[in-house]
Amino acid sequence: MASLEKPVVSFLGPIASYSHQAVRQVFPESSWELRPAATIDDVFDQVQFGEVKAGVVPIENSTNGSVVFTLDNLADRNGRYKDITVDGEIFVDVHHCLVGHRNPTPTLTDPRPSKPRSKPLASLRHIKRLYSHPQAFGQCNAFISTYLKGVEIFDVSSTSKAAEIVSQDTTGTWAAISSELAANLMHGLDMLARSIEDRDDNTTRFLIIGKNTTVPKDWNLVKHAEGKTGTRTLISFTVPHTSPGALAEVLSGFKSYNLNLTSINSRPSLLAPFQYIFFIEFEGNKYDDPDGRVKGALDNIDRVAQSWRLLGSWERYR
Amino acid sequence: MASLEKPVVSFLGPIASYSHQAVRQVFPESSWELRPAATIDDVFDQVQFGEVKAGVVPIENSTNGSVVFTLDNLADRNGRYKDITVDGEIFVDVHHCLVGHRNPTPTLTDPRPSKPRSKPLASLRHIKRLYSHPQAFGQCNAFISTYLKGVEIFDVSSTSKAAEIVSQDTTGTWAAISSELAANLMHGLDMLARSIEDRDDNTTRFLIIGKNTTVPKDWNLVKHAEGKTGTRTLISFTVPHTSPGALAEVLSGFKSYNLNLTSINSRPSLLAPFQYIFFIEFEGNKYDDPDGRVKGALDNIDRVAQSWRLLGSWERYR
Repeated sequence: MASLEKPVVSFLGPIASYSHQAVRQVFPESSWELRPAATIDDVFDQVQFGEVKAGVVPIENSTNGSVVFTLDNLADRNGRYKDITVDGEIFVDVHHCLVGHRNPTPTLTDPRPSKPRSKPLASLRHIKRLYSHPQAFGQCNAFISTYLKGVEIFDVSSTSKAAEIVSQDTTGTWAAISSELAANLMHGLDMLARSIEDRDDNTTRFLIIGKNTTVPKDWNLVKHAEGKTGTRTLISFTVPHTSPGALAEVLSGFKSYNLNLTSINSRPSLLAPFQYIFFIEFEGNKYDDPDGRVKGALDNIDRVAQSWRLLGSWERYR
Repeated sequence: MASLEKPVVSFLGPIASYSHQAVRQVFPESSWELRPAATIDDVFDQVQFGEVKAGVVPIENSTNGSVVFTLDNLADRNGRYKDITVDGEIFVDVHHCLVGHRNPTPTLTDPRPSKPRSKPLASLRHIKRLYSHPQAFGQCNAFISTYLKGVEIFDVSSTSKAAEIVSQDTTGTWAAISSELAANLMHGLDMLARSIEDRDDNTTRFLIIGKNTTVPKDWNLVKHAEGKTGTRTLISFTVPHTSPGALAEVLSGFKSYNLNLTSINSRPSLLAPFQYIFFIEFEGNKYDDPDGRVKGALDNIDRVAQSWRLLGSWERYR
């Protein structure tokens, strides 16, 4: 009997990355193969060129803001990703921990008053180097500036990679900021502090991308227990720079059709300096638009924008 | 006779940084002392706390986009910079070069077809490490992926720092991406390639910040030869998340008053996840507004926004 091959969903790896956690939240491993990719570009490539059926990439963090690598691929300035659509989103609560090796000398509690939300579980005075992803450093400013002042910072490609590097440290003076999951996958790391992120509502939002599709029913994704909470549509557009007022004209269309804008981003168009590709997200679903408001706003954009693209509409479960 | 102390303008250092080039373009050294600061935060601090009269910080690059560290200080979530105003802007053409040490073995021309705009001046096969600022790496993708594939990348805090590190290399296998000015300040570096940036219109825009002021006439800045080319106003605002449509309402006000929006940015508000502080720049000058259009748009924002702030109005010379 031939076994059925499962469809594949690609995510920004490595194993135990926050993207991996995102995928595990909604893609059941009983019906999907979860495959790590080395870069965000690789996830887009694999979806566009049909090697995988879906991809999951980070789009923004509630503390740090947008992930420009994902925006730049959605901007698709060279037409490489012309069939990519955005078909859903996933929210992951992000908790970082500090891992390394405990100092064998007696532990002293740190005397400094703590502005950070959490305290070390062990003395950190022996720590000389700190490894993590730049986004994680940006989310743990208070802890680092209180307990790890003067420690040398090393940017690496992922928090999992940071934990891996520190697991191979023989000096006992290196530490990593990573997820607890990633830390647990490595041998011989001590937990030095938990939940060291600045804010307890630190959340990363991921997008599910596919190819020329809204997520079909047969994708069998895990829905949030509380059910559908709304709809979102994402578009990108450019405006003619010879037409003053075009940007305000595009934006005022959303008011005319009573559509709630939920986010705006811009990236360089790379056509001329200081011209932009804009990204707008709003409440509404192109594929479920009984009163034609989404259609109205998109028709307005089509009239005013120099170029535009519907990147996707999806149902929000959160 | 007492010598007059010059007013000080602070910039993101070190010496020979692109910010330094920006300051030198418009602040005459005959009447200003130019002082490097270690970080963008330090520039804001020195202006707010009266240690210097003006500051110059990068706000966006035409290839890489916004500088979030500057936006976050302008967002001023903790009220630390309540008196800071934006009083002008400076554009700097950014050309990067590759410096290091020539390989003493015979030079071979590289056989790969060149997508990048420029070719190496010497063989690069001996290069094992590449140092620069992350923004510079982002501006030289084509050159790096063609001529320096597989070389280990090291992020450092400035392109000047990168040149300094490589000037101390004894292996002859390290290289730095920096400005020609910064490279020339270091001893013993060979020029390995010039103008390696992806785009020949690569430009960084800087903001001039002051304290509760528009640039007064007595600042004596150097104006561009072609004279004034326009005016800009920068505001920040948040919208009540309980009021759907508030963002569209704010934005549509610019259309009502026929004001051309020139850029939009957003950063996390850090009040709740996925709520934002928006930044809008538009053509117009609050201090030279005979027909009241700027006043009209700002009154509209005052009515609709949850909070907002006029960061500044200035004349553009470019």
